[in-house]
Amino acid sequence: MNQTSKELPRLVIIGGGFAGINVAKAFKNVAVEIDLIDKRNYHLFQPLLYQVATGELDPANIAAPIRKILWKQKNVHVALGKVTNIDFDKKIVHFDGGEMDYDYLVIATGAQQSYFGHDEFRVHAPGLKTIDDALEIRRRLFLAFEEAEWEADEESRRKKLTFVIVGGGPTGVELAGAVKEVATETLPKEFRNVHCDMARVILVDGGERLVGPMPEDLGKKAQEVLEKMGVEIHLQVHVNDVTSEGVVIGDETIPAENVFWAAGVQGQDLAKKLDVETDRGSRIVVNPDMSIPGHPEVFVVGDAAHATDAKTGKPVPGVAQGAIQTGRFVAEIIKQELQGNPPKERPAFSYYDKGSMAMIGRGNAIAAIGKVHYSGILGWISWNILHVMFLVGFRNRFKVMLDWLWNYIWKTRRSRLITGDPQVHIKRLYSERQKREEEKHRRLLQRKQDEEQ
Amino acid sequence: MNQTSKELPRLVIIGGGFAGINVAKAFKNVAVEIDLIDKRNYHLFQPLLYQVATGELDPANIAAPIRKILWKQKNVHVALGKVTNIDFDKKIVHFDGGEMDYDYLVIATGAQQSYFGHDEFRVHAPGLKTIDDALEIRRRLFLAFEEAEWEADEESRRKKLTFVIVGGGPTGVELAGAVKEVATETLPKEFRNVHCDMARVILVDGGERLVGPMPEDLGKKAQEVLEKMGVEIHLQVHVNDVTSEGVVIGDETIPAENVFWAAGVQGQDLAKKLDVETDRGSRIVVNPDMSIPGHPEVFVVGDAAHATDAKTGKPVPGVAQGAIQTGRFVAEIIKQELQGNPPKERPAFSYYDKGSMAMIGRGNAIAAIGKVHYSGILGWISWNILHVMFLVGFRNRFKVMLDWLWNYIWKTRRSRLITGDPQVHIKRLYSERQKREEEKHRRLLQRKQDEEQ
Repeated sequence: MNQTSKELPRLVIIGGGFAGINVAKAFKNVAVEIDLIDKRNYHLFQPLLYQVATGELDPANIAAPIRKILWKQKNVHVALGKVTNIDFDKKIVHFDGGEMDYDYLVIATGAQQSYFGHDEFRVHAPGLKTIDDALEIRRRLFLAFEEAEWEADEESRRKKLTFVIVGGGPTGVELAGAVKEVATETLPKEFRNVHCDMARVILVDGGERLVGPMPEDLGKKAQEVLEKMGVEIHLQVHVNDVTSEGVVIGDETIPAENVFWAAGVQGQDLAKKLDVETDRGSRIVVNPDMSIPGHPEVFVVGDAAHATDAKTGKPVPGVAQGAIQTGRFVAEIIKQELQGNPPKERPAFSYYDKGSMAMIGRGNAIAAIGKVHYSGILGWISWNILHVMFLVGFRNRFKVMLDWLWNYIWKTRRSRLITGDPQVHIKRLYSERQKREEEKHRRLLQRKQDEEQ
Repeated sequence: MNQTSKELPRLVIIGGGFAGINVAKAFKNVAVEIDLIDKRNYHLFQPLLYQVATGELDPANIAAPIRKILWKQKNVHVALGKVTNIDFDKKIVHFDGGEMDYDYLVIATGAQQSYFGHDEFRVHAPGLKTIDDALEIRRRLFLAFEEAEWEADEESRRKKLTFVIVGGGPTGVELAGAVKEVATETLPKEFRNVHCDMARVILVDGGERLVGPMPEDLGKKAQEVLEKMGVEIHLQVHVNDVTSEGVVIGDETIPAENVFWAAGVQGQDLAKKLDVETDRGSRIVVNPDMSIPGHPEVFVVGDAAHATDAKTGKPVPGVAQGAIQTGRFVAEIIKQELQGNPPKERPAFSYYDKGSMAMIGRGNAIAAIGKVHYSGILGWISWNILHVMFLVGFRNRFKVMLDWLWNYIWKTRRSRLITGDPQVHIKRLYSERQKREEEKHRRLLQRKQDEEQ
């Protein structure tokens, strides 16, 4: 690379998610030197993260090394590192341990979980944005059942088996359905004291209905199916507090040891350090061409951007398609300018809605494609096909299909290791014999009472 | 269970490894109440752990929930918990949060890594006994290459790409071969500045040859193959120090940022708390029938026991077969006594050596079965078949075979996520441009010198 690189223009991409990867890929065979930097060494297929959290898939099924995705594209140089600041005037990206200079910069840093100003909730209510988040939820989910199995106190056991999911968007709906399935189908046959009707799964959302961004009839449908599965749904209430003992929703306190947060997202902290305009959710406000005001060589794409659809005037949604489309759009602008044939004026981004879907449970998903809305087994099939299609890597696709098929047939989940040191532990375990003694005693007492009557 | 359980004898098994699981399974359809307690919720297939550490397999491929293995056996009650003490007189097992009483007790707690009195090495040289260990090695291994890719200083880069594996037993040999393969076959094509001849892999052992417990010709063979692959082997030297900067072997200091420890094992700390005789490696010394002196109702099996082969007088080896065989042996004694037809005298345990194997590299493994020793592709095929056969769970077997086949064909490894916060970071990253400037300068200088000559 060195022999020619001194003449080549330089493009730096921050982030290897849907947006960043799609930007990089668009420059295949283009004479440009690309640095792609990410704080993780893998690209994550976030839509399936809830399946890692609930033991259905392995982390490596839905994450592929960024290097591996791009290794054939010789003009890309991947770096693992965390960007600490950007000097827009000198055109330098600073990261932990070094710096990169650029001619064009694409910020594709994605989003992180938002606790709406209540960051103190985080420790009690893990979010679901990273592999580590998913493993933490998985740990808590399966540990809860292990502890409940040996918990003598009825009230404590109920608290251990109460799962509150905050946020009724697609992630919250999918997580609630999957947790309920774990509780009713996967685990009870392997436990002696935990039965399939013991676990409470509660889904909370402040809105009027579930999956707000999707059509109303599908929101209703999702609610109907989840309620039939036994998920309790609380709408139009807000979570006012989360502690290790439970949640306060509205005025009601629900004792619960497991709270999972799928309520909101915000831009990364990096945005706050930059001299740019951000919205309330730390997303960077961009021009119609996705560049930042005053710096036509700097673009923001995907979840990191606060962008407005040029045709509808609506905000571009923070979904995979939004990231892919803004990424490709920006890449096209840069490519044209690099190749010396830009249009007189840069185009304005407009989002093309390919539809949306959400899995609810075994054999049931909701889907909206254009004006066609459907659910049930047909939705479920579409959901599975679509998610497998978009997974990166042929082998991952094959293995995920295999896992799904197997789990579907056997109603099981294989990936439920509790890793790390399980420090959270049972408050009061009982000896089986002690319990038997108590029962014997109770039965004797009962008999006496019966005889006396 | 409660209606009849008060008359049933009680068996407590501590540990769900090869030994513990095999004890439990032997009591299928026997009228006994079994509590199996483990500090992890999964049974781990340790012989394949090095493949998780080197990104070949996912953790869930080689670990199965203990509950899932035993769910059909209704007389087994599984508990997640850490045993804190055992009262041999009152026949009670204490664990974090509760207690269990027993009529028979089987201690199958396995082994942990031993640093031979140098526990201060541990932080710099992770062992390879648990999933968490394997993930830590995986993290360090792949992070080393990420850091090296952007390291400007030649000396630092060399240190980052030097991997020292301490211990030349089967685990050390397998790990060294796999790390070398990662360095030469898997990664270089995805990197721009790291090339396949850059990484040094050094295997250190205090003995005269590799894989000491295996026949001498195979030890020689392993050394020959590893050296051909480029692994440097240091024999008959001891590791005198391990720091974050490197290792001291004998008098020589080797600068290395990655040290992996596969040198020795010892019993769990629990043994030290008990009023029992232990050997230097914290293994509990047992009678010929695997019971502990003075307590015929308490047995120790697998790696936790210091047992002597009744026929040969040699120590029973700390391998999977040793655990399986001692487990089944003890289960048979207990079963006979429970069923009221014990032999006059308890039998003495004798180990049946089914052979041993070690993977060296792509298409090459060594194997000793009885007096037949072989290596190369035939050894490799045997190794693969044997390890898949012993894996728990049909789906795991299938998926592991699929992974192996895929990795073999494509010379790749899929499971190389760096999870957790990668805090260890690059000391000095260079800007590509800076490097180019330096090279330009160097070339100009060179040209000048050439012209002057």
